[in-house]
Amino acid sequence: MMRAIVQAPMSGGPSTPALAAAVSNAGGLGFLAAGYRTVAQLSADLAEVRQLTSEPFGVNVFAHRSAPVDVAETAAAWGLDPAAAHWSDDSFADKVALLAEDPPAVVSFTFGLPEPLPLVGTQTWVTVTGVAEARAAGAAGADALVVQGYEAGGHRGAWVDSPQREDVGTLALLALVRAAVDVPLVATGGIADGAGVAAVLAAGASAAMLGTAFLLCPEAGTVASYRSALVTDRPTALTRAFSGRLARGIVNGWMTAHPDAPLAYPEVHYLTAPMRAEARATSDTDRFNLWAGQAHSLARALPAGELVQLLTEEAREALELARHRIDR
Amino acid sequence: MMRAIVQAPMSGGPSTPALAAAVSNAGGLGFLAAGYRTVAQLSADLAEVRQLTSEPFGVNVFAHRSAPVDVAETAAAWGLDPAAAHWSDDSFADKVALLAEDPPAVVSFTFGLPEPLPLVGTQTWVTVTGVAEARAAGAAGADALVVQGYEAGGHRGAWVDSPQREDVGTLALLALVRAAVDVPLVATGGIADGAGVAAVLAAGASAAMLGTAFLLCPEAGTVASYRSALVTDRPTALTRAFSGRLARGIVNGWMTAHPDAPLAYPEVHYLTAPMRAEARATSDTDRFNLWAGQAHSLARALPAGELVQLLTEEAREALELARHRIDR
Repeated sequence: MMRAIVQAPMSGGPSTPALAAAVSNAGGLGFLAAGYRTVAQLSADLAEVRQLTSEPFGVNVFAHRSAPVDVAETAAAWGLDPAAAHWSDDSFADKVALLAEDPPAVVSFTFGLPEPLPLVGTQTWVTVTGVAEARAAGAAGADALVVQGYEAGGHRGAWVDSPQREDVGTLALLALVRAAVDVPLVATGGIADGAGVAAVLAAGASAAMLGTAFLLCPEAGTVASYRSALVTDRPTALTRAFSGRLARGIVNGWMTAHPDAPLAYPEVHYLTAPMRAEARATSDTDRFNLWAGQAHSLARALPAGELVQLLTEEAREALELARHRIDR
Repeated sequence: MMRAIVQAPMSGGPSTPALAAAVSNAGGLGFLAAGYRTVAQLSADLAEVRQLTSEPFGVNVFAHRSAPVDVAETAAAWGLDPAAAHWSDDSFADKVALLAEDPPAVVSFTFGLPEPLPLVGTQTWVTVTGVAEARAAGAAGADALVVQGYEAGGHRGAWVDSPQREDVGTLALLALVRAAVDVPLVATGGIADGAGVAAVLAAGASAAMLGTAFLLCPEAGTVASYRSALVTDRPTALTRAFSGRLARGIVNGWMTAHPDAPLAYPEVHYLTAPMRAEARATSDTDRFNLWAGQAHSLARALPAGELVQLLTEEAREALELARHRIDR
């Protein structure tokens, strides 16, 4: 049995043990984001969330396998220190080993399909952005697929980043994946409120995963200037300018200045990390990533537990209303 | 009271009086596409659909107001006859006048907001692709808004085509528009089946509009080679290479060869028209527009009336299933 409302893991600051615990305590499924954390930090996060809740929660792990890329030219062109750039697998094996010691309810993977799929004595989810990925993840034994549509904020979970890929909207992608595989689906991308939750459940998902909708919760680690940007109607776009991998964020100066950023993840992530840390500290929203889904302006500044309750009530009402619409 | 399932108008061949009548006779709302028809052809289409049904139906009219563009250089580069290219308003005023004589149940406008909005003694709908367009159409007195998401096949209905626009996915766009205006919404883009219909109704739409889903119906004017392309999993993309205006179609040779087509609608439409007509006649699917939404592979070759019935049943089942998911 899957909880219908899932909080998306949001690496780089927004996801916190307090956020995950509050969501799980309210009947949703909270998530820790292991991405960019050291193994020691992840261990501390796990201890903290377990202190705050005895409910199930999930942990997301990056599983990229891109080949290293030299970004010295990009560093020079962008005026950044090339020494900051490096390849890393984000301590994949050590994180999986840590999680296997005392598994959370769900371990999810993003950016790739680990082969073989680590069986850590728990539910294993794999993020997919297309039918071919869904078929492969299903065949590998994933217990559920996180189906990420075009609308989603943050990084595209595609296993291979490429300009030739088609980014498919959540609604169409859910229908395509549902027709291709017989595995429970967790829909994410563009779900702003309880009506959106109801919509993806009607479209065949077992659960709705929301990220941007939780960014304004007091439990989230979202910095103040980022919160301010979210409550505007500023447009979003897909960019590789912050990390070398396609991601959706609110359009800002850095994105506009670097439309032709290279495919070089995670090298560009580390290359821009010092600039982004400084920009976050000084509230310079033109120089750090304002990851956000396309419906970001609808995010609500509520405690996470209240938000989960509200989403559930709204979803029930939306389904009731829809039933009257189809029956009239 | 709005019918929950609407057949999208599809100019250029697929929409026929027989398709519109079959949809309306089955309890949906069929649509004629006035675009690219002469006034005399539209008049004949209206007579034909009225002979086939006494149920309500709609007519879609193009309302673009782009300035004329010289496409001589494009014609030379593409090896096409520049004499074919010309600007046209698609006989907007004469078509509106014809419709006002004996109004169909709904007149919808695409590519712009006519000012003042023609009041032809019937329901007036306006296609929108963003919140600003939705606010303007609502303020102008539109009875409903056709909310077209990124997933949709065929032309984007944006009032001004521009590379700077954000194309928003159906699910996110519905939420944003619903929060901005208090007008009934007709959702379109990526709706492949009854679960998709249920999804947009749950997301707050009063009706679901499907285009690609009807392309394989025997009543549709879709040519055979186009039908064959639809039932594959070939990717779609947005292109200006066929018409000079952004539209989504199955990726083919002409699209791939001309990634930098100019913003020049309808001049490029007329420029490529002879090539496309010949390609359709010779089944050369690399040289005519295979407009299709992102879930095109799920289209079903059923008589339109049966399809409307099936979509309705599937939508009911999907809502029932979703209710169990949120209540468990």
